[in-house]
Amino acid sequence: MNILVVYAHHEPGSLVASLKNVGISTLQSMGHEVYESDLYGIGFHPIANKYDFSTLGGGHFNYMLEQKHATDNSWGFSPDIVEQMQRLQQAELVIFYTPIWWFSVPAIMKGWFDRVLTMGFAWDAGKIYEEGLLRGKKAMLVGVAGGPEEYYQPLGRHKATLRQIMHPIFHGTFSFCGLDVLDPFFVFSSLNKTPEEYAGILDSHKASIEQAVNNPKYLSKF
Amino acid sequence: MNILVVYAHHEPGSLVASLKNVGISTLQSMGHEVYESDLYGIGFHPIANKYDFSTLGGGHFNYMLEQKHATDNSWGFSPDIVEQMQRLQQAELVIFYTPIWWFSVPAIMKGWFDRVLTMGFAWDAGKIYEEGLLRGKKAMLVGVAGGPEEYYQPLGRHKATLRQIMHPIFHGTFSFCGLDVLDPFFVFSSLNKTPEEYAGILDSHKASIEQAVNNPKYLSKF
Repeated sequence: MNILVVYAHHEPGSLVASLKNVGISTLQSMGHEVYESDLYGIGFHPIANKYDFSTLGGGHFNYMLEQKHATDNSWGFSPDIVEQMQRLQQAELVIFYTPIWWFSVPAIMKGWFDRVLTMGFAWDAGKIYEEGLLRGKKAMLVGVAGGPEEYYQPLGRHKATLRQIMHPIFHGTFSFCGLDVLDPFFVFSSLNKTPEEYAGILDSHKASIEQAVNNPKYLSKF
Repeated sequence: MNILVVYAHHEPGSLVASLKNVGISTLQSMGHEVYESDLYGIGFHPIANKYDFSTLGGGHFNYMLEQKHATDNSWGFSPDIVEQMQRLQQAELVIFYTPIWWFSVPAIMKGWFDRVLTMGFAWDAGKIYEEGLLRGKKAMLVGVAGGPEEYYQPLGRHKATLRQIMHPIFHGTFSFCGLDVLDPFFVFSSLNKTPEEYAGILDSHKASIEQAVNNPKYLSKF
Protein backbone atom coordinates (compact mmCIF):
# COMPACT_ATOMS: atom_id res chain seq x y z
CA MET A 1 0.00 0.00 0.00
CA ASN A 2 0.98 3.57 -0.58
CA ILE A 3 0.40 5.47 2.67
CA LEU A 4 0.58 9.19 3.39
CA VAL A 5 1.33 10.32 6.95
CA VAL A 6 0.37 13.91 7.76
CA TYR A 7 2.08 14.90 10.99
CA ALA A 8 1.59 18.11 12.98
CA HIS A 9 3.84 18.53 16.00
CA HIS A 10 6.71 20.90 16.68
CA GLU A 11 8.57 18.63 19.11
CA PRO A 12 10.47 15.48 18.11
CA GLY A 13 10.35 14.44 21.79
CA SER A 14 6.54 14.56 21.99
CA LEU A 15 4.20 11.61 22.36
CA VAL A 16 2.65 12.52 19.00
CA ALA A 17 6.12 12.23 17.40
CA SER A 18 6.74 8.86 19.09
CA LEU A 19 3.40 7.52 17.90
CA LYS A 20 4.12 8.72 14.38
CA ASN A 21 7.55 7.06 14.39
CA VAL A 22 6.06 3.77 15.63
CA GLY A 23 3.35 4.00 12.99
CA ILE A 24 5.79 4.59 10.15
CA SER A 25 8.23 1.89 11.21
CA THR A 26 5.39 -0.61 11.66
CA LEU A 27 4.06 0.13 8.18
CA GLN A 28 7.51 -0.01 6.60
CA SER A 29 8.32 -3.32 8.27
CA MET A 30 5.10 -4.68 6.76
CA GLY A 31 6.45 -3.69 3.35
CA HIS A 32 4.29 -0.64 2.73
CA GLU A 33 5.44 2.55 1.04
CA VAL A 34 5.12 5.51 3.44
CA TYR A 35 5.41 9.17 2.55
CA GLU A 36 5.55 11.64 5.44
CA SER A 37 4.28 15.21 5.29
CA ASP A 38 5.89 16.68 8.40
CA LEU A 39 3.98 19.97 8.42
CA TYR A 40 6.18 21.76 10.98
CA GLY A 41 9.31 20.27 9.44
CA ILE A 42 8.56 21.53 5.94
CA GLY A 43 7.26 24.86 7.26
CA PHE A 44 3.85 24.21 5.74
CA HIS A 45 2.01 27.47 5.16
CA PRO A 46 -1.56 27.10 6.49
CA ILE A 47 -3.17 30.37 5.39
CA ALA A 48 -5.51 30.14 2.39
CA ASN A 49 -5.09 33.19 0.18
CA LYS A 50 -5.11 34.28 -3.45
CA TYR A 51 -1.37 33.63 -3.68
CA ASP A 52 -2.27 29.93 -3.64
CA PHE A 53 -3.16 30.10 -7.34
CA SER A 54 -1.00 30.42 -10.43
CA THR A 55 -4.17 30.83 -12.48
CA LEU A 56 -7.01 33.09 -11.44
CA GLY A 57 -10.53 32.79 -12.81
CA GLY A 58 -11.14 36.52 -12.81
CA GLY A 59 -14.08 38.40 -11.30
CA HIS A 60 -14.87 38.39 -7.59
CA PHE A 61 -12.28 36.27 -5.80
CA ASN A 62 -13.88 33.30 -4.06
CA TYR A 63 -11.35 30.82 -2.67
CA MET A 64 -13.47 27.71 -3.27
CA LEU A 65 -14.38 28.65 -6.84
CA GLU A 66 -10.75 29.50 -7.58
CA GLN A 67 -9.83 26.01 -6.34
CA LYS A 68 -12.26 24.57 -8.86
CA HIS A 69 -10.90 26.81 -11.62
CA ALA A 70 -7.29 25.92 -10.80
CA THR A 71 -8.02 22.18 -10.62
CA ASP A 72 -9.64 22.35 -14.04
CA ASN A 73 -6.65 24.28 -15.43
CA SER A 74 -3.70 21.90 -15.00
CA TRP A 75 -3.64 22.17 -11.21
CA GLY A 76 -2.79 25.87 -11.26
CA PHE A 77 -1.88 26.00 -7.56
CA SER A 78 1.28 27.06 -5.79
CA PRO A 79 3.87 24.23 -5.77
CA ASP A 80 3.46 23.38 -2.07
CA ILE A 81 -0.24 22.64 -2.63
CA VAL A 82 0.40 20.61 -5.79
CA GLU A 83 2.95 18.50 -3.93
CA GLN A 84 0.46 17.60 -1.18
CA MET A 85 -2.30 16.94 -3.73
CA GLN A 86 -0.01 14.56 -5.63
CA ARG A 87 0.88 12.65 -2.46
CA LEU A 88 -2.79 12.42 -1.52
CA GLN A 89 -3.70 11.26 -5.02
CA GLN A 90 -1.17 8.42 -4.82
CA ALA A 91 -2.11 7.33 -1.29
CA GLU A 92 -4.53 4.53 -0.50
CA LEU A 93 -4.50 5.38 3.20
CA VAL A 94 -3.83 8.72 4.95
CA ILE A 95 -2.94 8.79 8.65
CA PHE A 96 -3.09 12.09 10.53
CA TYR A 97 -0.94 12.40 13.67
CA THR A 98 -1.95 15.38 15.79
CA PRO A 99 -2.33 16.79 19.26
CA ILE A 100 -5.91 17.75 20.18
CA TRP A 101 -5.99 21.52 20.74
CA TRP A 102 -9.28 23.28 21.38
CA PHE A 103 -11.30 20.17 20.49
CA SER A 104 -9.64 20.08 17.06
CA VAL A 105 -6.32 19.90 15.23
CA PRO A 106 -3.68 22.67 15.37
CA ALA A 107 -3.94 25.50 12.84
CA ILE A 108 -1.14 24.06 10.71
CA MET A 109 -3.18 20.88 10.07
CA LYS A 110 -6.45 22.80 9.63
CA GLY A 111 -4.61 24.77 6.95
CA TRP A 112 -3.72 21.51 5.21
CA PHE A 113 -7.47 20.73 5.01
CA ASP A 114 -8.24 24.29 3.83
CA ARG A 115 -5.60 24.38 1.08
CA VAL A 116 -5.11 20.76 -0.10
CA LEU A 117 -8.66 19.33 -0.14
CA THR A 118 -9.55 21.46 -3.11
CA MET A 119 -12.86 21.75 -4.89
CA GLY A 120 -12.62 19.80 -8.14
CA PHE A 121 -10.04 17.40 -6.69
CA ALA A 122 -11.28 16.21 -3.28
CA TRP A 123 -14.95 17.06 -3.83
CA ASP A 124 -17.10 18.99 -6.28
CA ALA A 125 -20.61 20.38 -6.72
CA GLY A 126 -22.88 17.40 -6.06
CA LYS A 127 -19.87 15.18 -5.44
CA ILE A 128 -19.70 14.86 -1.68
CA TYR A 129 -19.94 11.98 0.80
CA GLU A 130 -20.68 8.76 -1.13
CA GLU A 131 -19.89 10.67 -4.34
CA GLY A 132 -16.79 12.40 -2.88
CA LEU A 133 -13.81 12.43 -5.23
CA LEU A 134 -11.44 10.70 -2.78
CA ARG A 135 -13.64 7.63 -2.47
CA GLY A 136 -11.81 4.33 -2.28
CA LYS A 137 -9.13 5.83 -0.03
CA LYS A 138 -9.06 5.48 3.75
CA ALA A 139 -8.29 7.98 6.51
CA MET A 140 -7.28 7.45 10.14
CA LEU A 141 -6.66 10.00 12.85
CA VAL A 142 -4.25 9.50 15.74
CA GLY A 143 -4.89 12.18 18.36
CA VAL A 144 -3.35 12.99 21.74
CA ALA A 145 -5.46 14.89 24.28
CA GLY A 146 -4.23 16.40 27.53
CA GLY A 147 -7.58 16.09 29.31
CA PRO A 148 -8.88 12.96 31.04
CA GLU A 149 -11.18 10.58 29.22
CA GLU A 150 -13.96 11.03 31.81
CA TYR A 151 -14.36 14.64 30.66
CA TYR A 152 -15.03 13.37 27.14
CA GLN A 153 -18.46 11.87 27.77
CA PRO A 154 -21.94 13.05 26.83
CA LEU A 155 -22.58 13.69 30.55
CA GLY A 156 -18.99 14.74 31.27
CA ARG A 157 -17.56 18.24 31.34
CA HIS A 158 -16.94 18.34 27.60
CA LYS A 159 -20.52 17.15 26.94
CA ALA A 160 -19.48 14.75 24.17
CA THR A 161 -17.09 11.92 23.40
CA LEU A 162 -13.93 12.78 21.49
CA ARG A 163 -15.36 10.87 18.50
CA GLN A 164 -18.41 13.13 18.58
CA ILE A 165 -16.20 16.20 19.03
CA MET A 166 -14.27 15.19 15.91
CA HIS A 167 -17.47 15.24 13.79
CA PRO A 168 -16.22 18.27 11.81
CA ILE A 169 -13.17 16.23 10.81
CA PHE A 170 -14.46 12.64 10.61
CA HIS A 171 -17.73 13.50 8.90
CA GLY A 172 -17.40 17.09 7.65
CA THR A 173 -13.92 16.66 6.17
CA PHE A 174 -12.95 12.99 5.65
CA SER A 175 -16.40 11.55 4.81
CA PHE A 176 -17.31 14.73 2.94
CA CYS A 177 -14.51 13.93 0.46
CA GLY A 178 -15.60 10.30 0.20
CA LEU A 179 -12.87 8.82 2.41
CA ASP A 180 -13.60 5.68 4.42
CA VAL A 181 -12.94 6.66 8.03
CA LEU A 182 -11.06 4.13 10.14
CA ASP A 183 -11.44 3.84 13.90
CA PRO A 184 -9.28 6.57 15.44
CA PHE A 185 -6.49 6.00 17.95
CA PHE A 186 -6.79 8.40 20.88
CA VAL A 187 -4.65 9.00 23.95
CA PHE A 188 -6.09 10.89 26.94
CA SER A 189 -4.38 12.48 29.98
CA SER A 190 -1.20 12.58 27.93
CA LEU A 191 0.85 14.49 30.51
CA ASN A 192 0.35 12.13 33.43
CA LYS A 193 1.80 8.82 32.38
CA THR A 194 4.59 6.66 33.75
CA PRO A 195 7.35 5.49 31.36
CA GLU A 196 5.71 2.05 31.41
CA GLU A 197 2.39 3.56 30.41
CA TYR A 198 3.99 5.46 27.52
CA ALA A 199 5.60 2.21 26.35
CA GLY A 200 2.22 0.47 26.58
CA ILE A 201 0.59 3.20 24.49
CA LEU A 202 3.20 2.78 21.75
CA ASP A 203 2.71 -1.01 21.77
CA SER A 204 -1.01 -0.60 21.53
CA HIS A 205 -0.59 1.89 18.69
CA LYS A 206 1.57 -0.62 16.81
CA ALA A 207 -1.27 -3.13 17.12
CA SER A 208 -3.83 -0.57 15.98
CA ILE A 209 -1.81 0.20 12.85
CA GLU A 210 -1.48 -3.50 12.02
CA GLN A 211 -5.23 -3.87 12.46
CA ALA A 212 -5.93 -0.78 10.33
CA VAL A 213 -4.05 -2.41 7.48
CA ASN A 214 -4.94 -6.09 7.89
CA ASN A 215 -8.44 -6.04 9.32
CA PRO A 216 -9.72 -2.46 9.28
CA LYS A 217 -12.54 -1.36 11.52
CA TYR A 218 -14.51 1.56 10.20
CA LEU A 219 -16.13 4.49 11.91
CA SER A 220 -17.91 5.04 8.60
CA LYS A 221 -17.47 3.50 5.18
CA PHE A 222 -18.89 4.23 1.75
CA MET B 1 -18.65 48.70 26.08
CA ASN B 2 -15.22 47.73 24.87
CA ILE B 3 -15.61 45.25 22.01
CA LEU B 4 -13.00 43.19 20.18
CA VAL B 5 -13.76 42.08 16.62
CA VAL B 6 -11.67 39.15 15.36
CA TYR B 7 -12.04 38.97 11.59
CA ALA B 8 -10.73 36.24 9.28
CA HIS B 9 -11.28 36.82 5.58
CA HIS B 10 -8.85 37.61 2.77
CA GLU B 11 -11.32 39.51 0.58
CA PRO B 12 -12.68 42.99 1.36
CA GLY B 13 -15.48 42.30 -1.15
CA SER B 14 -16.70 39.18 0.67
CA LEU B 15 -19.96 38.78 2.55
CA VAL B 16 -17.97 38.14 5.73
CA ALA B 17 -16.25 41.53 5.25
CA SER B 18 -19.60 43.28 4.65
CA LEU B 19 -21.09 41.72 7.77
CA LYS B 20 -18.05 42.77 9.79
CA ASN B 21 -18.28 46.34 8.49
CA VAL B 22 -21.99 46.53 9.34
CA GLY B 23 -21.29 45.10 12.78
CA ILE B 24 -18.55 47.60 13.56
CA SER B 25 -20.46 50.63 12.28
CA THR B 26 -23.57 49.57 14.21
CA LEU B 27 -21.58 49.22 17.42
CA GLN B 28 -19.76 52.51 16.89
CA SER B 29 -23.00 54.38 16.19
CA MET B 30 -24.28 53.04 19.53
CA GLY B 31 -21.27 54.67 21.20
CA HIS B 32 -19.21 51.54 21.85
CA GLU B 33 -15.46 51.29 21.54
CA VAL B 34 -14.48 48.71 18.89
CA TYR B 35 -11.03 47.28 18.29
CA GLU B 36 -10.58 45.18 15.16
CA SER B 37 -8.09 42.32 14.82
CA ASP B 38 -8.06 41.83 11.05
CA LEU B 39 -6.09 38.58 11.00
CA TYR B 40 -5.35 38.55 7.26
CA GLY B 41 -4.72 42.30 7.29
CA ILE B 42 -2.10 42.12 10.06
CA GLY B 43 -0.59 38.91 8.64
CA PHE B 44 -1.38 37.07 11.85
CA HIS B 45 0.91 34.08 12.28
CA PRO B 46 -1.22 31.03 13.21
CA ILE B 47 1.43 28.39 13.91
CA ALA B 48 2.09 27.61 17.58
CA ASN B 49 5.79 27.04 18.14
CA LYS B 50 8.56 27.59 20.67
CA TYR B 51 9.34 30.95 19.08
CA ASP B 52 6.13 32.19 20.69
CA PHE B 53 7.94 32.58 24.01
CA SER B 54 10.50 35.09 25.21
CA THR B 55 10.92 33.01 28.38
CA LEU B 56 11.25 29.26 28.35
CA GLY B 57 10.62 27.08 31.38
CA GLY B 58 13.35 24.60 30.52
CA GLY B 59 13.08 20.83 30.28
CA HIS B 60 10.88 19.04 27.78
CA PHE B 61 9.08 21.63 25.67
CA ASN B 62 5.31 21.40 26.09
CA TYR B 63 3.44 24.27 24.43
CA MET B 64 0.64 24.43 27.02
CA LEU B 65 2.96 24.33 30.01
CA GLU B 66 5.18 26.99 28.42
CA GLN B 67 2.08 29.17 28.05
CA LYS B 68 1.50 28.81 31.79
CA HIS B 69 5.15 29.57 32.53
CA ALA B 70 5.17 32.63 30.26
CA THR B 71 1.89 33.96 31.67
CA ASP B 72 3.32 33.69 35.19
CA ASN B 73 6.53 35.44 34.09
CA SER B 74 5.37 38.90 32.93
CA TRP B 75 3.60 37.61 29.83
CA GLY B 76 6.78 36.32 28.26
CA PHE B 77 5.23 35.81 24.82
CA SER B 78 6.14 37.17 21.43
CA PRO B 79 4.71 40.71 20.93
CA ASP B 80 1.96 39.67 18.49
CA ILE B 81 0.50 37.32 21.11
CA VAL B 82 0.77 39.90 23.91
CA GLU B 83 -1.07 42.46 21.75
CA GLN B 84 -4.01 40.08 21.19
CA MET B 85 -4.06 39.07 24.87
CA GLN B 86 -4.21 42.73 25.91
CA ARG B 87 -7.10 43.44 23.54
CA LEU B 88 -8.93 40.39 24.80
CA GLN B 89 -8.30 41.37 28.42
CA GLN B 90 -9.83 44.81 27.81
CA ALA B 91 -12.84 43.54 25.87
CA GLU B 92 -16.23 42.87 27.41
CA LEU B 93 -17.52 41.28 24.21
CA VAL B 94 -15.60 39.49 21.43
CA ILE B 95 -17.21 38.98 18.02
CA PHE B 96 -15.66 36.52 15.58
CA TYR B 97 -16.39 37.05 11.86
CA THR B 98 -15.50 34.02 9.79
CA PRO B 99 -16.33 31.87 6.80
CA ILE B 100 -17.18 28.24 7.66
CA TRP B 101 -14.55 26.02 6.07
CA TRP B 102 -14.54 22.28 6.75
CA PHE B 103 -17.17 22.61 9.52
CA SER B 104 -14.91 25.06 11.36
CA VAL B 105 -13.03 28.35 11.10
CA PRO B 106 -10.08 28.92 8.72
CA ALA B 107 -6.59 28.01 9.96
CA ILE B 108 -5.72 31.66 10.62
CA MET B 109 -8.53 31.92 13.21
CA LYS B 110 -7.81 28.47 14.68
CA GLY B 111 -4.27 29.72 15.21
CA TRP B 112 -5.64 32.71 17.13
CA PHE B 113 -7.33 30.23 19.52
CA ASP B 114 -4.16 28.11 19.73
CA ARG B 115 -1.80 31.01 20.47
CA VAL B 116 -3.86 33.68 22.28
CA LEU B 117 -6.11 31.67 24.63
CA THR B 118 -3.14 30.77 26.78
CA MET B 119 -3.02 28.58 29.86
CA GLY B 120 -2.77 30.83 32.90
CA PHE B 121 -4.59 33.68 31.14
CA ALA B 122 -7.73 32.25 29.49
CA TRP B 123 -7.94 29.08 31.60
CA ASP B 124 -5.82 27.14 34.06
CA ALA B 125 -5.60 23.78 35.82
CA GLY B 126 -9.03 23.35 37.44
CA LYS B 127 -10.13 26.71 36.05
CA ILE B 128 -12.30 25.83 33.09
CA TYR B 129 -15.96 26.38 32.17
CA GLU B 130 -17.71 28.12 35.10
CA GLU B 131 -14.26 28.76 36.61
CA GLY B 132 -12.70 29.81 33.29
CA LEU B 133 -10.47 32.87 33.55
CA LEU B 134 -12.36 34.89 30.92
CA ARG B 135 -15.65 34.68 32.80
CA GLY B 136 -17.77 37.81 32.72
CA LYS B 137 -16.93 38.40 29.06
CA LYS B 138 -19.18 37.46 26.16
CA ALA B 139 -18.42 35.88 22.78
CA MET B 140 -20.44 35.81 19.56
CA LEU B 141 -19.67 34.08 16.28
CA VAL B 142 -20.83 35.35 12.90
CA GLY B 143 -20.31 32.59 10.33
CA VAL B 144 -20.96 32.31 6.59
CA ALA B 145 -21.47 28.84 5.11
CA GLY B 146 -21.60 27.98 1.42
CA GLY B 147 -23.85 24.95 1.87
CA PRO B 148 -27.64 25.03 2.18
CA GLU B 149 -29.30 25.04 5.59
CA GLU B 150 -31.20 21.81 4.87
CA TYR B 151 -27.86 19.94 4.85
CA TYR B 152 -27.22 21.20 8.39
CA GLN B 153 -29.83 19.10 10.18
CA PRO B 154 -29.50 16.01 12.39
CA LEU B 155 -31.16 14.02 9.59
CA GLY B 156 -29.57 16.06 6.80
CA ARG B 157 -26.40 15.30 4.87
CA HIS B 158 -24.15 16.93 7.46
CA LYS B 159 -25.88 14.93 10.26
CA ALA B 160 -25.97 17.90 12.64
CA THR B 161 -27.05 21.52 12.87
CA LEU B 162 -24.36 24.17 12.44
CA ARG B 163 -24.73 24.99 16.14
CA GLN B 164 -23.96 21.37 16.99
CA ILE B 165 -21.10 21.34 14.49
CA MET B 166 -19.63 24.38 16.26
CA HIS B 167 -19.48 22.49 19.60
CA PRO B 168 -15.64 22.50 19.54
CA ILE B 169 -15.75 26.30 19.37
CA PHE B 170 -18.88 27.25 21.34
CA HIS B 171 -18.33 24.75 24.15
CA GLY B 172 -14.76 23.50 23.82
CA THR B 173 -13.20 26.94 23.29
CA PHE B 174 -15.51 29.81 24.34
CA SER B 175 -17.29 28.13 27.28
CA PHE B 176 -14.10 26.31 28.25
CA CYS B 177 -12.52 29.71 28.96
CA GLY B 178 -15.60 30.89 30.89
CA LEU B 179 -17.05 33.10 28.16
CA ASP B 180 -20.82 33.56 27.96
CA VAL B 181 -21.75 32.43 24.45
CA LEU B 182 -24.26 34.59 22.60
CA ASP B 183 -26.57 33.26 19.93
CA PRO B 184 -24.55 33.01 16.71
CA PHE B 185 -25.45 34.72 13.45
CA PHE B 186 -25.21 32.29 10.54
CA VAL B 187 -25.68 32.70 6.79
CA PHE B 188 -26.22 29.62 4.60
CA SER B 189 -26.03 29.17 0.79
CA SER B 190 -23.86 32.26 0.69
CA LEU B 191 -23.07 32.06 -3.03
CA ASN B 192 -26.62 31.98 -4.30
CA LYS B 193 -28.23 35.21 -3.20
CA THR B 194 -29.77 38.13 -5.08
CA PRO B 195 -28.55 41.66 -4.28
CA GLU B 196 -31.82 42.18 -2.37
CA GLU B 197 -31.14 39.07 -0.29
CA TYR B 198 -27.61 40.24 0.53
CA ALA B 199 -29.04 43.60 1.64
CA GLY B 200 -31.61 41.80 3.78
CA ILE B 201 -28.87 39.72 5.44
CA LEU B 202 -26.93 42.86 6.34
CA ASP B 203 -30.07 44.48 7.79
CA SER B 204 -30.81 41.42 9.81
CA HIS B 205 -27.21 41.31 11.05
CA LYS B 206 -27.49 44.94 12.18
CA ALA B 207 -30.55 43.94 14.23
CA SER B 208 -28.74 40.91 15.67
CA ILE B 209 -25.83 43.11 16.83
CA GLU B 210 -28.23 45.59 18.46
CA GLN B 211 -29.92 42.68 20.21
CA ALA B 212 -26.59 41.16 21.28
CA VAL B 213 -25.77 44.41 23.07
CA ASN B 214 -29.17 45.52 24.35
CA ASN B 215 -30.98 42.29 25.06
CA PRO B 216 -28.56 39.41 24.65
CA LYS B 217 -29.79 35.89 24.03
CA TYR B 218 -27.41 33.20 25.18
CA LEU B 219 -26.52 29.84 23.77
CA SER B 220 -24.90 29.19 27.14
CA LYS B 221 -24.15 31.43 30.09
CA PHE B 222 -22.20 31.06 33.31
